[in-house]
Amino acid sequence: MKKILVLGAGRSTDALIHYLDSRSSSLSVQLTLADAEARVLEKKIKNYSSAVQSLLLNANDAEALQKAIAGHDMVISMLPAFMHPAVAKHCLELKKHLFTASYVSPEMNAMDKEARKHHVLFLNECGLDPGIDHLSVMKALHEIREKNGKVYSFRSWCGGLVAKESNDNPWGYKFSWNPRNVILAGKGTAVYRMNGQLRFTPYHRLFKEHFMVSDTKGEKFDGYPNRNSLLYETIYGLKGIPTFIRGTLRYPGFCKGWHILIDAGLTDDSSLLPKELSLSLHDLTKACLGIESGKNLRDELQSRYADIWSSDIEKKLEYIGIIGTKEPVPGNPSTLADALQNVLEEKWKLKQGDKDRVVMIHETEYHDETGKKIRRISSLDLNGMDENHTAMALTVGLPLAIAVRLFIENKVKDEGVVIPVDKKWYEPILSELEKHHIRFNEKEEEITG
Amino acid sequence: MKKILVLGAGRSTDALIHYLDSRSSSLSVQLTLADAEARVLEKKIKNYSSAVQSLLLNANDAEALQKAIAGHDMVISMLPAFMHPAVAKHCLELKKHLFTASYVSPEMNAMDKEARKHHVLFLNECGLDPGIDHLSVMKALHEIREKNGKVYSFRSWCGGLVAKESNDNPWGYKFSWNPRNVILAGKGTAVYRMNGQLRFTPYHRLFKEHFMVSDTKGEKFDGYPNRNSLLYETIYGLKGIPTFIRGTLRYPGFCKGWHILIDAGLTDDSSLLPKELSLSLHDLTKACLGIESGKNLRDELQSRYADIWSSDIEKKLEYIGIIGTKEPVPGNPSTLADALQNVLEEKWKLKQGDKDRVVMIHETEYHDETGKKIRRISSLDLNGMDENHTAMALTVGLPLAIAVRLFIENKVKDEGVVIPVDKKWYEPILSELEKHHIRFNEKEEEITG
Repeated sequence: MKKILVLGAGRSTDALIHYLDSRSSSLSVQLTLADAEARVLEKKIKNYSSAVQSLLLNANDAEALQKAIAGHDMVISMLPAFMHPAVAKHCLELKKHLFTASYVSPEMNAMDKEARKHHVLFLNECGLDPGIDHLSVMKALHEIREKNGKVYSFRSWCGGLVAKESNDNPWGYKFSWNPRNVILAGKGTAVYRMNGQLRFTPYHRLFKEHFMVSDTKGEKFDGYPNRNSLLYETIYGLKGIPTFIRGTLRYPGFCKGWHILIDAGLTDDSSLLPKELSLSLHDLTKACLGIESGKNLRDELQSRYADIWSSDIEKKLEYIGIIGTKEPVPGNPSTLADALQNVLEEKWKLKQGDKDRVVMIHETEYHDETGKKIRRISSLDLNGMDENHTAMALTVGLPLAIAVRLFIENKVKDEGVVIPVDKKWYEPILSELEKHHIRFNEKEEEITG
Repeated sequence: MKKILVLGAGRSTDALIHYLDSRSSSLSVQLTLADAEARVLEKKIKNYSSAVQSLLLNANDAEALQKAIAGHDMVISMLPAFMHPAVAKHCLELKKHLFTASYVSPEMNAMDKEARKHHVLFLNECGLDPGIDHLSVMKALHEIREKNGKVYSFRSWCGGLVAKESNDNPWGYKFSWNPRNVILAGKGTAVYRMNGQLRFTPYHRLFKEHFMVSDTKGEKFDGYPNRNSLLYETIYGLKGIPTFIRGTLRYPGFCKGWHILIDAGLTDDSSLLPKELSLSLHDLTKACLGIESGKNLRDELQSRYADIWSSDIEKKLEYIGIIGTKEPVPGNPSTLADALQNVLEEKWKLKQGDKDRVVMIHETEYHDETGKKIRRISSLDLNGMDENHTAMALTVGLPLAIAVRLFIENKVKDEGVVIPVDKKWYEPILSELEKHHIRFNEKEEEITG
């Protein structure tokens, strides 16, 4: 009997526990779900079989955390990413395996040698993005290499969106993930490579200079590059190829609208708002752009952003109360980013029955054996069931659950700080995901002209 | 005999020690200069009387720092500002007075109550900016209030520049202070108030939307607002007046040129440069703006920045190797900001005999008793002696030295975490500064029309 400690009860934990719980007897596992909020635990635990135990645990309490880990054989951490290193230290000390869906931090990476020494596995980046992207990219690249194709361009995109049928706002967006991360997305400078040139795009131009991306069916999306694409060049075996970009997808038009919010300064999270104002995004935008209160903000914006202005942008800005009716910002925002988030959390909330949508697109261009240029597009397109059973939660939780199952069944052996780019991981996980209707469409076409 | 520990041997420490050393017998003080570098200490100590002792001390070594503080009666910290809270904690524990020229951090501020309890003084913000600005502003405002003037607009500016006679580059700038701080200046969002409107200006528009500032003689400067001006509204007794700005001065034309560097992304300090490039600012600028290597960067820049382009900007960009001759970036920069700094540290270094210049300007507008609008300009304008005896070092070190003297002589009594805005501080310090030719010109004129 393997005892598994699952830290953090969120939507993706649901998908993960359902998968493992339903196989608990054949796998011979005993699951404990730990969370800091009794109310959340109580509600969640009802969804599972009576075999799943619950544990009230504040993961910031190092002693309690250590004790909890000591009583289990392995840990799955669904906590916020910044908490993983603390969890990993206990796991190292107590020689327990650890599974996460988050990016490998430098602190996590530094534990690799020690983890190997103790034959302990710390599997990370095994959710959606990172996760399914690695699995599917490695499979596609393997197939291209098998037929002696030479890749010269690689662009990989992923977005958590709202399903078309549940979209009722001009931004084409609802939150299926941490709203804070959406508001602050893209901060810093994006690093990637395009047509042989290393590229740095600062945040204030990132959304304006977005890309156009098509899936296998020809549906178009906006794409903007993630912070540092090049970290994955070597991992994917594509070091130094002329074009290498990893990025995020939004519905067409989103990026131009969001650029205006960034350029105005409404995503700033560094300066505290004075407590004096009865705030509206309308007034805050005027304050950011230095537009006198008597002037018409719509006209000023149209003239300032003439190069990208459209009725679509106008609708977007009206919808969030920047132009048109002034609406007070709810809550007590501390920063401009807080104010924007408070408004959007109300407007972009998944309502009862709303479905989210996950889209992942890999665009790989290569020279085949005869020298022809081939474009291969792989795309994943999945709608959620409802506002709780989201495509996002499923695609984050399920790959991790499958990885845990494979490891427990001894079907994959591994140790050290690992991400699932090896065939031994991606092949069985992708194959199991297909059984759950998470599968990629593939399309190849010759590039002519 | 008071034993004074001076932490950190930089240029401004020189000015400070000279002042106190030359009065050591009448003041009955014994000075110890502590620094982490033996070479620096050895060189510096030669400049002072034999009464000044030297102490090799790594201020990061908490035990050694505590021991050093325990052996003295008071501490003057000229260390980088982030180190002051650690020093202050020891001072609190050992009940020693502390003097710094740096902004009061939240950690420092939190020690106020405890410091008062032990009748210990932590005097901060007593250098140039912050420092002389507070002293002179409080004096000017006091004078205006004395004659029942009502202030409605306040703008205060300070800049460390290069003296006109030592200026040999199109930017009109040389480093008289920490180059890193100059490269990253303005990051975040500036908060101020103008014409009754609260204003937020994000970094990427801050230098483009700069102000024009005139001193008492009519010389013009560029000015850009500092991070959060409004922190000083209440301290200055000007809470809620229609215009309140604190900012930084540069010679005219600097801000437009610097805006191009910011907009390109060359001041980014967050993303690591791949180690693959033989770098030039020319190539990095192309990489930032996505300009193909075959294209003419000058023409592309002219077209992209058509609204601010001029021959002056062209000269600035040529001078630092963005257009014209490609020059490799010296050293091994880790980020774009590093690359820019490495180039500028060579080009903007004060050469032998070069003089720096400190300019401070307060523009205060008020209604006098009869309702007339009056503009009062106070300006300080001081050239340094040479590249070592800079106006910057003098104006940072001297006010602090004078404050220490006044405190030792019991001419000013105070306790707790304090900044020198009270008359008991500003009057005697300003009066002593005047004896050292650090004095403000004042000009008043009626605003008509």
